Amino acid sequence: VGSDRIFASYNVYKGKAALSAEPVPPRFAKMNSGGIRVKRQGFIMLSFSPSMGERKYDWQRKQIFALSATEVGSLISMGPNGSCEFFHDPAMQTSNAGQVRKSLSVKAHADGSGYFFSLAVANNVTKTNERFTVPITSAEFAVMRTSFSFALPHIMGWDQYSSQVLRMEENS
Amino acid sequence: VGSDRIFASYNVYKGKAALSAEPVPPRFAKMNSGGIRVKRQGFIMLSFSPSMGERKYDWQRKQIFALSATEVGSLISMGPNGSCEFFHDPAMQTSNAGQVRKSLSVKAHADGSGYFFSLAVANNVTKTNERFTVPITSAEFAVMRTSFSFALPHIMGWDQYSSQVLRMEENS
Amino acid sequence: VGSDRIFASYNVYKGKAALSAEPVPPRFAKMNSGGIRVKRQGFIMLSFSPSMGERKYDWQRKQIFALSATEVGSLISMGPNGSCEFFHDPAMQTSNAGQVRKSLSVKAHADGSGYFFSLAVANNVTKTNERFTVPITSAEFAVMRTSFSFALPHIMGWDQYSSQVLRMEENS
Amino acid sequence: VGSDRIFASYNVYKGKAALSAEPVPPRFAKMNSGGIRVKRQGFIMLSFSPSMGERKYDWQRKQIFALSATEVGSLISMGPNGSCEFFHDPAMQTSNAGQVRKSLSVKAHADGSGYFFSLAVANNVTKTNERFTVPITSAEFAVMRTSFSFALPHIMGWDQYSSQVLRMEENS
Repeated sequence: VGSDRIFASYNVYKGKAALSAEPVPPRFAKMNSGGIRVKRQGFIMLSFSPSMGERKYDWQRKQIFALSATEVGSLISMGPNGSCEFFHDPAMQTSNAGQVRKSLSVKAHADGSGYFFSLAVANNVTKTNERFTVPITSAEFAVMRTSFSFALPHIMGWDQYSSQVLRMEENS
Repeated sequence: VGSDRIFASYNVYKGKAALSAEPVPPRFAKMNSGGIRVKRQGFIMLSFSPSMGERKYDWQRKQIFALSATEVGSLISMGPNGSCEFFHDPAMQTSNAGQVRKSLSVKAHADGSGYFFSLAVANNVTKTNERFTVPITSAEFAVMRTSFSFALPHIMGWDQYSSQVLRMEENS
Repeated sequence: VGSDRIFASYNVYKGKAALSAEPVPPRFAKMNSGGIRVKRQGFIMLSFSPSMGERKYDWQRKQIFALSATEVGSLISMGPNGSCEFFHDPAMQTSNAGQVRKSLSVKAHADGSGYFFSLAVANNVTKTNERFTVPITSAEFAVMRTSFSFALPHIMGWDQYSSQVLRMEENS
Repeated sequence: VGSDRIFASYNVYKGKAALSAEPVPPRFAKMNSGGIRVKRQGFIMLSFSPSMGERKYDWQRKQIFALSATEVGSLISMGPNGSCEFFHDPAMQTSNAGQVRKSLSVKAHADGSGYFFSLAVANNVTKTNERFTVPITSAEFAVMRTSFSFALPHIMGWDQYSSQVLRMEENS
């Protein structure tokens, strides 16, 4: 693989929208001391795209939501009747803060057969509100739970610890 | 290993048939943009072979069933009393659709001590019906659950994210 | 690491005996077709060594028991009140079959605080019976469950699937 | 990565203190026989740093606690109402034993919504007692459980088994 970027998302196609999930590794920086540290945390990127006909989706109009490590922890530890909700402001801590507000809510179906993933995007500048809802079956959620659990140490940079050369001591 | 193909199936040998499971990685394609994307999803291949005497099996007459990521998710999240059933048409979306229908059913034993894995293959051309049933103990299912959970990110191509070169930023 | 053999066992030292666990990878063979297949399954090797004083153990007198993939599946799926028992004959299917019989039994403590691991070795030739019992706490068992689950795909050879070169198709 | 040391801790910032967690791989030594063995076990290092104002922490005054494999096993197997406590003496088995005593206690919130991680350090020489308490949500604990489970085989050195060259036998 080397330096080629990989595209391997998990896609769920439903009637009104498609949901895509893909891990994004952290960014590292060299330290003056010679080590390498995580400079920007990785995340799992969720994308919602509206349907525009029979199994066709409008990727141009997709809305994204980047799950942090702790938000991933929340998702993968959710029980069959659990729910969780996260709020993001893409311009947080800039002068544009508050213009766009995103919320992702995950709610169990009443009968325990899966979850609703809903993304709401309120834009105060364009005065628009968008909402995408994708029903996720238990089987699809099991794929997410397993693949997100796999990806979690990677977005934290912990997989790099085992690619270091072995630390050797003098013979015993 | 390199370019050699690996054969490392998990085999369960029972009285009337043997069940084999083996992951098959996805196929990738280079993108014009320079990245690499999953072109064809990987899967876990199940093979059922009929017995032809004392611990001998007729591999020539084996029937296969390729579990998708979501079907694997269904299997690994099944509780001790769970069940699931999948239907495949090997010629789906071709002019031969409907000629062969396959169904895999997994049902818990009444006493929770394991599962029955049954594959039925109905062939409308040869006018034949085949059915294979392999009883799987809880211990064998635990091997499947653990190894299928391990293989799931690989058949999705997510293991490739951690073989990319580190994304570095300027020193901090 | 390369061709150096690794020694990294998980050791539990108790009053009467020590228990050591270590994965042993499978052995592979080249096929005439050019592929590589698992020729001999890997296993997790358990070793029991009797105590010979304050935190000293007589490794010369150790007795071993090689857990197969399915036996590992049985162990890692055991509930807090579970138990399991395995029987091995080191000379099975040879003319010496039946001379030495080994049984490993794992039984939950009545209060759910852990397990007893007991290995019995009956030798019909030397007319000896040996028995080792090591109490394992819930925390120690959690280490075994997690590390054995990690090792299971490796002793099956499934970790090799992701070290293969990517299977590429023509550009799309 | 190669020989550069990696810094990729999981950090939880709370009102009175910050908690950091990071795996530290084992140290290996060459054996006269040619193999490589674990000489010093790895661990997961927890660091507690006191707050010194709005989202600022005094890293100079941090106190550390190195979780062994078995202590990690205890943490990752803890139920939603569980608790555990570990005692360390940094100078154990030296002439300074008993001068500094550290205890880490993890206790579930009464409502099952998370845990308190508390580190107490009693120093008999400086006659000081320090205590850090960091509340950890269920989501943060899920990150720890998943990443500590991932790291456990690595701090035991078991990830090295799969980087060995394949053990080949003669063709079959």
